[in-house]
Amino acid sequence: MTYRAPVRDLLFSLTHVADAFGAGAGSLTLELAAEVLEQAGRYATEVLDPLNTVGDRHGAKLVDDHVLTAPGFADAYRRFCDAGLMAIPFPEAHGGLGLPRALALGVHETLHAANMSFALCPMLSLGAIEALLAHGTPAQQALYLPQLVSGAWTGTMNLTEPQAGSDVGAVRTRAWQSGTEPDGTPRFRIEGQKTYITWGDHDVAENIVHLVLARLPGAPEGTRGLSLFLVPKFLPDAEGRPGVENDLRPIGLEHKLGIHASPTCTMQYGGGEGAVGWLIGPSGGGIAAMFTMMNSARLNVGLQGVAIAERAYQRAVTYAAERRQGAAPTVAEPGPARILAHPDVRRMLMQMRSRIAAARGICLLTAVAADRALQADTDAERTRARRREEFLTPIAKAWSTDIGVEVTSLAVQVHGGMGFCEDTGAAQHFRDARIAPIYEGTNGIQAIDLAGRKLSMAGGAALSEFLEDVAQTTAACRTLGNTRAQRLADRLAAAAQALAEAGAWMRAAMAATRVDGLSGATAFLRLAGDVAGGWALARGVVSAHRQSDPLATDALTLAGFYGETTLSLSPGLRAEIEMGAELVFGLDEAALGLG
Amino acid sequence: MTYRAPVRDLLFSLTHVADAFGAGAGSLTLELAAEVLEQAGRYATEVLDPLNTVGDRHGAKLVDDHVLTAPGFADAYRRFCDAGLMAIPFPEAHGGLGLPRALALGVHETLHAANMSFALCPMLSLGAIEALLAHGTPAQQALYLPQLVSGAWTGTMNLTEPQAGSDVGAVRTRAWQSGTEPDGTPRFRIEGQKTYITWGDHDVAENIVHLVLARLPGAPEGTRGLSLFLVPKFLPDAEGRPGVENDLRPIGLEHKLGIHASPTCTMQYGGGEGAVGWLIGPSGGGIAAMFTMMNSARLNVGLQGVAIAERAYQRAVTYAAERRQGAAPTVAEPGPARILAHPDVRRMLMQMRSRIAAARGICLLTAVAADRALQADTDAERTRARRREEFLTPIAKAWSTDIGVEVTSLAVQVHGGMGFCEDTGAAQHFRDARIAPIYEGTNGIQAIDLAGRKLSMAGGAALSEFLEDVAQTTAACRTLGNTRAQRLADRLAAAAQALAEAGAWMRAAMAATRVDGLSGATAFLRLAGDVAGGWALARGVVSAHRQSDPLATDALTLAGFYGETTLSLSPGLRAEIEMGAELVFGLDEAALGLG
Repeated sequence: MTYRAPVRDLLFSLTHVADAFGAGAGSLTLELAAEVLEQAGRYATEVLDPLNTVGDRHGAKLVDDHVLTAPGFADAYRRFCDAGLMAIPFPEAHGGLGLPRALALGVHETLHAANMSFALCPMLSLGAIEALLAHGTPAQQALYLPQLVSGAWTGTMNLTEPQAGSDVGAVRTRAWQSGTEPDGTPRFRIEGQKTYITWGDHDVAENIVHLVLARLPGAPEGTRGLSLFLVPKFLPDAEGRPGVENDLRPIGLEHKLGIHASPTCTMQYGGGEGAVGWLIGPSGGGIAAMFTMMNSARLNVGLQGVAIAERAYQRAVTYAAERRQGAAPTVAEPGPARILAHPDVRRMLMQMRSRIAAARGICLLTAVAADRALQADTDAERTRARRREEFLTPIAKAWSTDIGVEVTSLAVQVHGGMGFCEDTGAAQHFRDARIAPIYEGTNGIQAIDLAGRKLSMAGGAALSEFLEDVAQTTAACRTLGNTRAQRLADRLAAAAQALAEAGAWMRAAMAATRVDGLSGATAFLRLAGDVAGGWALARGVVSAHRQSDPLATDALTLAGFYGETTLSLSPGLRAEIEMGAELVFGLDEAALGLG
Repeated sequence: MTYRAPVRDLLFSLTHVADAFGAGAGSLTLELAAEVLEQAGRYATEVLDPLNTVGDRHGAKLVDDHVLTAPGFADAYRRFCDAGLMAIPFPEAHGGLGLPRALALGVHETLHAANMSFALCPMLSLGAIEALLAHGTPAQQALYLPQLVSGAWTGTMNLTEPQAGSDVGAVRTRAWQSGTEPDGTPRFRIEGQKTYITWGDHDVAENIVHLVLARLPGAPEGTRGLSLFLVPKFLPDAEGRPGVENDLRPIGLEHKLGIHASPTCTMQYGGGEGAVGWLIGPSGGGIAAMFTMMNSARLNVGLQGVAIAERAYQRAVTYAAERRQGAAPTVAEPGPARILAHPDVRRMLMQMRSRIAAARGICLLTAVAADRALQADTDAERTRARRREEFLTPIAKAWSTDIGVEVTSLAVQVHGGMGFCEDTGAAQHFRDARIAPIYEGTNGIQAIDLAGRKLSMAGGAALSEFLEDVAQTTAACRTLGNTRAQRLADRLAAAAQALAEAGAWMRAAMAATRVDGLSGATAFLRLAGDVAGGWALARGVVSAHRQSDPLATDALTLAGFYGETTLSLSPGLRAEIEMGAELVFGLDEAALGLG
């Protein structure tokens, strides 16, 4: 079943949920957004979607120190560059189109949905570009950005090592200065091994710009001692063309549950004289630069959750509209009914659709906040937008990827026995989706980030500002003069109240023993995500009603369903959030079954 | 990481939760149960566990109309039979050991945990044996039962056809009489195609007894027109040995997400003169006989959810006790802590362990009810036990298999990036677990069964009796004089109250338009399962405290955790249960994204 970009849903969410055409949108109009999304959608449908099964079956191969991607991927990547799809959100000075990040996010949803393995390649380039934009020297930007923004070269993130996963401070890769460039820039050598490097090597572009975390001599232990290095696969020659091959290579590929076509490499830097590289940002500034990449990547991974859920939903709803089985209470004519007429199947479709809309809304709201953090008119607006972006990022990452797993699982279920057979395609989405709660900081790490740093920023301003906005939306919902909207407002208000109280408890717990707070962090993130999703849907309802959008009634139905199935459970989450460490650590190792 | 049978946990659950050594246990003692479980556990660890990865990688192959199983499976099956593990719950008259079903279930948990693909083979034989015990003629029993009970022959269930999945009444396979045996028994021919036949063909035993649903000439449409036929792969000769090959063959194997070593066959019956078979039970009695097999299979599939969850948990907790990463707030010494010291990892382990214990309790309570339905002293006790078995069966199937998916997913998460790599083994459990919510009646079908037939039996007696028992346990919990037990009782009572109210609503809804009830059936089953799981854990707490079992405190910790993380959400489920069809069917097909 062919993927079709959900342009109508994306435009609805950009317009009514994320307000992407409001203040700070620059030259973006609804018409332009529609045009770009349609173009990206055609590319996703025609080029990427047909390669998704091919990539799953064929995978990537490591042959003689080089990764060969699945048949068709190199050509698809060339067409991706030709279509200018890489350049959307970057400054025109570096060859970009200067359009908002929120629109780029919509485009990337279609890429991830059609072929998650493929779309990871440009996703990693996005992070490298943002790191260079924020921390590169003018010379580095001039040399590398045009190549990355056009897509001619791709980027990677090299953080993880066998002993340094969630704890990036344990990185052991070494760097040392070994000379100086003619312009005085110090040149470095890098030596070490990095694991789980997405698209760490491949044959789809002419060069790869590796951004590598390493430790300089005498640097302190932990994250403060990390520096970020730019380490190209081929060193640019005097004309800026790929020249001498650097001392680095892929030495292993993971055999994974999903995203088979995305090469997950173990990379060896050095071995001879050490790989050549240059500092990005100051010595010891690695962690700051890393967070620039990570925040971008976290939002994009959240979006993967939305994308793979949307893909799986499309497959499920199409199947449910074709497959006939049994008599349905909603169908008068005799004979087997299409299964979408069966209440439990319809419920699953609604569950999928409402959660996708909620997660898409959260991701686009995060992107709009990121855009405004750079472009809003006043300092105060930019600061507030930055806080909103930082508050929503762990939620966008974790909540959306959790629903990615849930929705792809429901899509398997809708297919019944067919869903468990690989030829249907539903199983691949379920396998692919499972990585997203793990990489770019596990969802547990996101929960710690939210309950800790994000809740304590500026005296708790991020949460209180968020709750103010939710209250405003709730109040607006009540003015629509509609029973269903009233009930949605009640559900959202009760959930937000629980979040406010749990937030106060959590701030106190994290300031005290910390371990009690950490024990409830994941449940807290779930509550925050449930509220954020409900807020996103309710914003869509309010704006669509005010603008008399013909989709307003459907939006309210979807939000109402979400209210009765998700927000209804939110107040009950306080028990888990506040249960404390005594229960969580209540069983010793023998009682856990060890030893 | 090697699987170890959780004998201590199984004996705790048999003793304190399921009361398996109480009235109606026959000759079963704790010592005997321990011995049988230890023996089965050794077999599972030494023989089945090492074949689990082999089977996953190798799968089963269809070569020249015959299925070849993965290397080692035939030998493992021979050792299974030699150990007498098939015979446990069957009458001594047919070669069985005459032990309770509850003990057999414990044994099968260890088989499914070590190798779910393998254990499906004897699981299907169980169903065939029960169908023959309940509906076979004495001659059929004498000919087939000793072979099936010893394991020399295996059994299958042939229900599904391409157009007849959840709607078994749509079966088209035809049967017609073609002669009479010397003793006057009519002989039949069968022709048709059956899909998704688990272990439909293989090379591990000398004969296969297919039980096939088919339709006789002139039979009415729907389920009332179905009859069940015994169709052996090889027709028994005069000495009861496998003789002439029957006119049937596997014509296809599914390429599946998981359980690769379990051959899922498309079976062709007839093609020449038709396959030879004999009626089991009366003409038109197919659906009754099918339910005998299905009820057995449903409980066993629920148990698969427990088993695969336990296997995945063991892998996760072992990894968490070895893998070191970052500083943990609970650990004083410097350097990276083992990840089970991190609150969020510990929370995941507790979530897994508490849900496994709850689901295991539900399954064993169902098995004990099944045993008592046959063996209790009085008619009234047997009737009540039968109702309890029927009430718990859809819960055991659906709730336990849902937690199977959830727990195997958490086990992947505990492993981080390693969990997504196939060599760790966690990913296989996640893939294997995904079938269980689908087969033997999807979990949606189970929800309809619970909300419809099971709730209306005997004027709602099944639910009211269940709630009486829950209230008794709650009251007993309060008498323990322990704050945590008090809090558990509060949580359980609140959840049970919600179930009582939702049950009343559901009965009324199913008696009225039905479609409103069906829209909330899955949420109703979840609520019933949450309560049943809490009841099981609380029963364990009460009994262990009363008997001063040294495991009593740990049982209370686990139950307390369940109370704060699961029962705390139960009252909120009423909203979804009672939301009605208006929301569920609120989007038309265009709004669902179709057309």
